[in-house]
Amino acid sequence: MTTIERPNETPLSPLRFLQRSAEVFGHKTAIIHGDRSYTYSDFAAEAQQLAKAIRSRIQPGDRVAFLCPNVPELLIAHYAVPLAGGVLVALNTRMTARELQYILEHSEARLLFADSELLGTVAGLDLGLTQVAGVIEVPDSTIPDPEVPAGLSTTRYADFLAGPDSGDADLPWGVQDERAPITLNYTSGTTGKPKGVLYSHRGAYLNSLGETIHNQFTGDTRYLWTLPMFHCNGWCTTWAVTAVAGVHICLRAVRADAVWDAIDTLGATNLCGAPTVCSIIAGAPQAHELTAPLLITTAGAPPSPAIITSLDSLGITVVHVYGLTEVYGPYTICEYQSEWDELSPQERAVKISRQGVGMLQAETARIVDLDMLDVPADGTTLGEIVLRGNNVMLGYFKDPEATAEAFAGGWFHTGDLGVMHPDGYIQLKDRAKDIIISGGENISTIEVEQAISSHPAVLNVAVIGVPHEKWGERPVAFVIRSSASPVTAEEIRAHVQGLLSGFKVPDRILFPDELPHNSTGKVLKSQLRALGVSAVALSQEAAK
Amino acid sequence: MTTIERPNETPLSPLRFLQRSAEVFGHKTAIIHGDRSYTYSDFAAEAQQLAKAIRSRIQPGDRVAFLCPNVPELLIAHYAVPLAGGVLVALNTRMTARELQYILEHSEARLLFADSELLGTVAGLDLGLTQVAGVIEVPDSTIPDPEVPAGLSTTRYADFLAGPDSGDADLPWGVQDERAPITLNYTSGTTGKPKGVLYSHRGAYLNSLGETIHNQFTGDTRYLWTLPMFHCNGWCTTWAVTAVAGVHICLRAVRADAVWDAIDTLGATNLCGAPTVCSIIAGAPQAHELTAPLLITTAGAPPSPAIITSLDSLGITVVHVYGLTEVYGPYTICEYQSEWDELSPQERAVKISRQGVGMLQAETARIVDLDMLDVPADGTTLGEIVLRGNNVMLGYFKDPEATAEAFAGGWFHTGDLGVMHPDGYIQLKDRAKDIIISGGENISTIEVEQAISSHPAVLNVAVIGVPHEKWGERPVAFVIRSSASPVTAEEIRAHVQGLLSGFKVPDRILFPDELPHNSTGKVLKSQLRALGVSAVALSQEAAK
Repeated sequence: MTTIERPNETPLSPLRFLQRSAEVFGHKTAIIHGDRSYTYSDFAAEAQQLAKAIRSRIQPGDRVAFLCPNVPELLIAHYAVPLAGGVLVALNTRMTARELQYILEHSEARLLFADSELLGTVAGLDLGLTQVAGVIEVPDSTIPDPEVPAGLSTTRYADFLAGPDSGDADLPWGVQDERAPITLNYTSGTTGKPKGVLYSHRGAYLNSLGETIHNQFTGDTRYLWTLPMFHCNGWCTTWAVTAVAGVHICLRAVRADAVWDAIDTLGATNLCGAPTVCSIIAGAPQAHELTAPLLITTAGAPPSPAIITSLDSLGITVVHVYGLTEVYGPYTICEYQSEWDELSPQERAVKISRQGVGMLQAETARIVDLDMLDVPADGTTLGEIVLRGNNVMLGYFKDPEATAEAFAGGWFHTGDLGVMHPDGYIQLKDRAKDIIISGGENISTIEVEQAISSHPAVLNVAVIGVPHEKWGERPVAFVIRSSASPVTAEEIRAHVQGLLSGFKVPDRILFPDELPHNSTGKVLKSQLRALGVSAVALSQEAAK
Repeated sequence: MTTIERPNETPLSPLRFLQRSAEVFGHKTAIIHGDRSYTYSDFAAEAQQLAKAIRSRIQPGDRVAFLCPNVPELLIAHYAVPLAGGVLVALNTRMTARELQYILEHSEARLLFADSELLGTVAGLDLGLTQVAGVIEVPDSTIPDPEVPAGLSTTRYADFLAGPDSGDADLPWGVQDERAPITLNYTSGTTGKPKGVLYSHRGAYLNSLGETIHNQFTGDTRYLWTLPMFHCNGWCTTWAVTAVAGVHICLRAVRADAVWDAIDTLGATNLCGAPTVCSIIAGAPQAHELTAPLLITTAGAPPSPAIITSLDSLGITVVHVYGLTEVYGPYTICEYQSEWDELSPQERAVKISRQGVGMLQAETARIVDLDMLDVPADGTTLGEIVLRGNNVMLGYFKDPEATAEAFAGGWFHTGDLGVMHPDGYIQLKDRAKDIIISGGENISTIEVEQAISSHPAVLNVAVIGVPHEKWGERPVAFVIRSSASPVTAEEIRAHVQGLLSGFKVPDRILFPDELPHNSTGKVLKSQLRALGVSAVALSQEAAK
């Protein structure tokens, strides 16, 4: 019971979701992780216990950091930390020590919970430069227990939980001010230092309800954690799946065998992830046609029509959403229109690969010019995607200038360029810096990438613009081929001739062994640009 | 586009739902009424047109009354009136002229829209005593056009729409203050004058999302309007079904043939209503087993286990909810537990007939004693049901004293008595005045009614307490029998002997031709009490 006195206005908070599911569905399975499982009663009890232990170590509003893969403890922390009056910082486990050091200092986190396997990374940090007053080791029975690195002083999670305050009365499942911060999520920082994005209880609550409705989550949902919880708190599904008392199936890492095992033996009904996750599922040796429904919600980059068609043939439905850390994960959804049933699979996949329309809990997305005027809905005029509403962040932590800049004109500026189609659907074209200007014409690298990846022998592709004496810039493609079929540059060029205007076809196609990725799985085009390749194909390449 | 400048907090309003569905699903069918149908574009366009016409006749915050059955115009008014800055008063068409006169005066409504068929009722009102500045006649092509009563000056709906302001720019689909009133709903006034219950944009929005999730509304939902829209704005489904771009199927009246026709030919997937609606559907000559899912959400009185079992056998799922006008319709829902699958149909029906637990958007319902302390969760200790949160009304219109009384102790007092079961489910026992105290023991009239109605030959039953020399009070039952099987009082008494403690079995069972109902379909027990029947059975009755 919260202490709010007004009978007709309870501050919105996702803490209510766990309270309710524990009260109503206490005996129902809430979390599965390897051999471990938690009922909703267990889930709520551990959240309370952890919250009490944390509360005795922090001041209200203090940040508490977790460096963990998708384990139950990180899910529980999504309730325990705000229950303790703190703000959760879920750290990206793929970040470098340098990035982690920066975030720990910037967030001023007071406690750091770290997965046993990641203690080595923690040992490499200079915690003396941070406000971290204690490191708590989170062991995981599904992996061998690694040794604590020498010189690192840690408390075991179980010992931390068993602290003196764990016997107190339960903390209230609520918050006094729904605009209070609940989590602090750092951007991947592809364009500079990571920025700290503050989410509110209100925003988290409303986005969770929106996710629930759009994903059609119910008590029968079995949600597979392929999406890292540290990405926008799992696009708010850490809270949404709990709201309907669905089952959280944890996964430490996205491996094809583990994913297909969860689908086949644990009956996963929903999962989220970047197109890479789609590729892993579709390309797995275990892949087979499904009889029970499986919904994949994908974002991060437009899924290629090829992958949509491929998953469709397995009986898997793909929903494409678009968003950013600053908007709690997804903001738009490519709502399916029944008349698309009449289209060919290829035409339908093109429709589905668009970013779509604002979700129910969001507002109408706009594409504007530099004067904040809407561009024509003609499907071709480029503008910036701007967003607004209850799923826009409170602001950047300790950065009022960047916040003011991002909120210029009363809208959040995504920095993403797109077009508005006549049907009101937006389509992302590129980050501003990823547009190639060739002979005065804009070339969208995404468009070129999608054309190339529609070739069946192409596994992955990245396109960049490189300087060119005559045209200013020209596209160059870096292609990862399927080992089974060593397609040539000329074959790829021939394939895309029919799909792209001539000036958009790359003159040069290279075949590196792998593409450089950042910690969120995005291709680091800056590293590709740094290679300094020429736009002019060598004669022997063309014959490859 | 609204005029709010903050990029990260749009005031919550269900107006957003129609804006979005018109933008995204403009060509999709929104409303079906006889031969008429509206797309979502039509729906939004008429809402705008009506809003502009209304706005030129009212001041912000003014009330606008509608006296209509479930026709498209009343649904559209749920958007048009708030869009115009007004507050919708949806009048109960079953009220007497005296009640309507009171409500029109009390609400100070400036405009009165009335269905053609109800103009006779309007002609009987003294509008000179009200603030009504204009009566607009709403014709309905599905019925013959009645004559306008002599002496009543009205504007036809189409002429009103075609007013001078209809060409202006669209009004913004939003509100500046989410706590602003959106509708004013009058209670049925069984215990005195009807009270005006104010709903807010915020409450309407959140309850709509809760209804959407609990009813699993989607774009494929075909919602049959068996529940009057004037009951708590159709329990907020006027807004919720629009949120997911479902289809509203209008119905002027709940007749078995029309309901089954809508199920069979229009593919209705969901409907709501009092147990009477369930009885009409189950008892119809057209009743047959369904292959497609149909969900009935019922409230107003606990559905009898008999009716639940009967609908179950037709393949219809019944969900039982509980609420009041003061809480936007449903507040609790009897969430199904998978372990109930193991129970016998009769035991399961008993579980389902309980009022249940707070909905997702609500708080945990409490049952308290006179000191506001929770009663033991023992399933037997009676207490008052008190509720709180975002689905509690703003307050009673122009009645701060009644509001303060209803909100005493920071909770809304329902005036309903119930028990808390060990599993956290509440069960309504009775309105305080409907409890019978016999020999110092409480007898729940609902419990006795459910026992009697489980007899297959009983169509309807009402139990009241009447004075008794020895016991203080004793129950008397009024039973409507199926014409096919004229069961006797002794047979009914024999049937309930095994279901009730002996002191709860009515000594006297009467068989009137019909039961008196008020305008919301509730049995008027006050009229039964006024009959002044004796609790002592006459010897010839027992032999009946």
